Amino acid sequence: MSTTQAHLRKPYLLFLGEETQAPYAKTALGIRDWAPESCTGQWRLAGSAIDLGLPDLTPEEAVARGARSLVIGVAPVGGTIPEHWLPHLLQAIAAGLEIVSGMHARLASFAPLVLAAGNHGVTLHDVRHSDRAFPIATGRKRRGKRLLTVGTDCALGKKYTALAIARELLARGRKATFRATGQTGIIIAGSGVAIDAVVSDFVTGAAESLSPDNDADHWDVIEGQGALFHPAYAPVTLGLIHGSQPDAIVLCHDPSRQTILGWPDFPIPDLGDAIDAYLTQGRLTNSAIRCVGISVNTAQMSETDRRPHLRGLADRFALPVFDPIRDGVGGVVDRLEVGT
Amino acid sequence: MSTTQAHLRKPYLLFLGEETQAPYAKTALGIRDWAPESCTGQWRLAGSAIDLGLPDLTPEEAVARGARSLVIGVAPVGGTIPEHWLPHLLQAIAAGLEIVSGMHARLASFAPLVLAAGNHGVTLHDVRHSDRAFPIATGRKRRGKRLLTVGTDCALGKKYTALAIARELLARGRKATFRATGQTGIIIAGSGVAIDAVVSDFVTGAAESLSPDNDADHWDVIEGQGALFHPAYAPVTLGLIHGSQPDAIVLCHDPSRQTILGWPDFPIPDLGDAIDAYLTQGRLTNSAIRCVGISVNTAQMSETDRRPHLRGLADRFALPVFDPIRDGVGGVVDRLEVGT
Repeated sequence: MSTTQAHLRKPYLLFLGEETQAPYAKTALGIRDWAPESCTGQWRLAGSAIDLGLPDLTPEEAVARGARSLVIGVAPVGGTIPEHWLPHLLQAIAAGLEIVSGMHARLASFAPLVLAAGNHGVTLHDVRHSDRAFPIATGRKRRGKRLLTVGTDCALGKKYTALAIARELLARGRKATFRATGQTGIIIAGSGVAIDAVVSDFVTGAAESLSPDNDADHWDVIEGQGALFHPAYAPVTLGLIHGSQPDAIVLCHDPSRQTILGWPDFPIPDLGDAIDAYLTQGRLTNSAIRCVGISVNTAQMSETDRRPHLRGLADRFALPVFDPIRDGVGGVVDRLEVGT
Repeated sequence: MSTTQAHLRKPYLLFLGEETQAPYAKTALGIRDWAPESCTGQWRLAGSAIDLGLPDLTPEEAVARGARSLVIGVAPVGGTIPEHWLPHLLQAIAAGLEIVSGMHARLASFAPLVLAAGNHGVTLHDVRHSDRAFPIATGRKRRGKRLLTVGTDCALGKKYTALAIARELLARGRKATFRATGQTGIIIAGSGVAIDAVVSDFVTGAAESLSPDNDADHWDVIEGQGALFHPAYAPVTLGLIHGSQPDAIVLCHDPSRQTILGWPDFPIPDLGDAIDAYLTQGRLTNSAIRCVGISVNTAQMSETDRRPHLRGLADRFALPVFDPIRDGVGGVVDRLEVGT
């Protein structure tokens, strides 16, 4: 079995094209926020109105400062690579940079890029795709501790919560690794598996390979995907639960949502039912699984509204309940440290 | 979206190579048993000791009798295509036959076959692989009735049970279609989706596309895969449950098994727990789901032992409990007909 994860070369030059709107530069903003030490600079084309606060560099200047890869940090509508970017990407390749893309369209589908990459001996990384071979899951219990973020839906803070917990553990001098399962997380971490792109027979095995044997006091903090109650993506979530063998889960929730985002006929489950369902599934491969906290996205709530809301949940579940952005993740990390 | 299922051209010439052992000719035997009207003949090389009871034909003779495809009906150890078969496969292509393989090795990886298929305008079908594009699941309820076979483990009769139920419905003059999810089933049916080869993000959507809208009184009888309690394959099973939206499930079980086949640390679940787990998951996309029977593989039991065993289960669950091979599937089909 060859390498089963994407492995990227840092540091990065972040390519912003001519993007003008921050939502489309989510990838670049995430990398700047979570891996600032991995960012040599930004490369903006004429018309760009995004500024990451990094030095503006050409590929040649970035290479001179040590950059190893150009990351496409914006996602144009349609998820493809505009033709007029090709000369810029070719310039980066010629300067010796590897190219990293999290888009649906594959770099490898552009013949000029493939040709140039071959000529210059650099690799093209399509981190949204998982063409690598993964083993069938064994179910064998691995050494070390694992935390998986799970959710009542997609896109409500599972990546952010996992990144914040890993950072807090490291800040306290604990051994911890953030394990990425989606394209932005992979670029931040420099490695990982785009788990939803893995063939279903191998998805649990891919999750196993993502958090291998480790020191007994080491925490892998694994970015969750999808939701068990999601009418399309539940299989991805189940493979992550079974393969990650989590000792701890943190449930992520957005109280402003009544139904699954994009599937209005499917209700968001009750939080108690959701925790029960995740623990039931998790016990298949780790009988010691427990829920250690609830991460609530309160971006839509005023301070007056959110305080009693969080306190109500904390009373009901006897767990730390927090918005990771507004409250931090100290409470849940305390729980991991005392092991209760 | 282009065609999302494999579509094979019948009838078949069954290629047996020089196989001498029946277990390796399982595919050919399954096709002969379940789709005899689709078998023009058999083609055996010198040394073969398998006889399907079909006419021995060369590709040219088979084409003269109407055959459209050559099916590789044996699975050599290693799952690959021996070099010395290539001249025979090329002969079949030259005679105008399409080639159908359920092996891990892809026909498409043999350049001479690809070249010849192009020259003769025939298609190579690797039915174990699912390279086609599938939509993301919508969760939208479809017209028509659906039955899914599920199990306490893999490889204990889910395909056989589904085939037998579909055949019995048709014999009673009902509208029914067997829906195949694995390679042998696909070759028997002439179409289907190798569901475990679909990328995990699309596995539920692939299951949806397998049993499209149909007449209100039509039953799709869907071949199950894996098991919810399986440490490697549960995501495949979950996608099938959510995407099939079954009105009815039949639980398949082998009482001689104590642990998951090949995963000795994982116990076979209690049958009541298994039924509950499948119904719980199924309710996400079909609140009317019910269990209509238990299919028990009693191949390992004497008549004296199996009778009280089946009766005990029938009493406990108030359901038809049967070995589809020894007892038939009349009881469960009665339930489908009365709709209770």
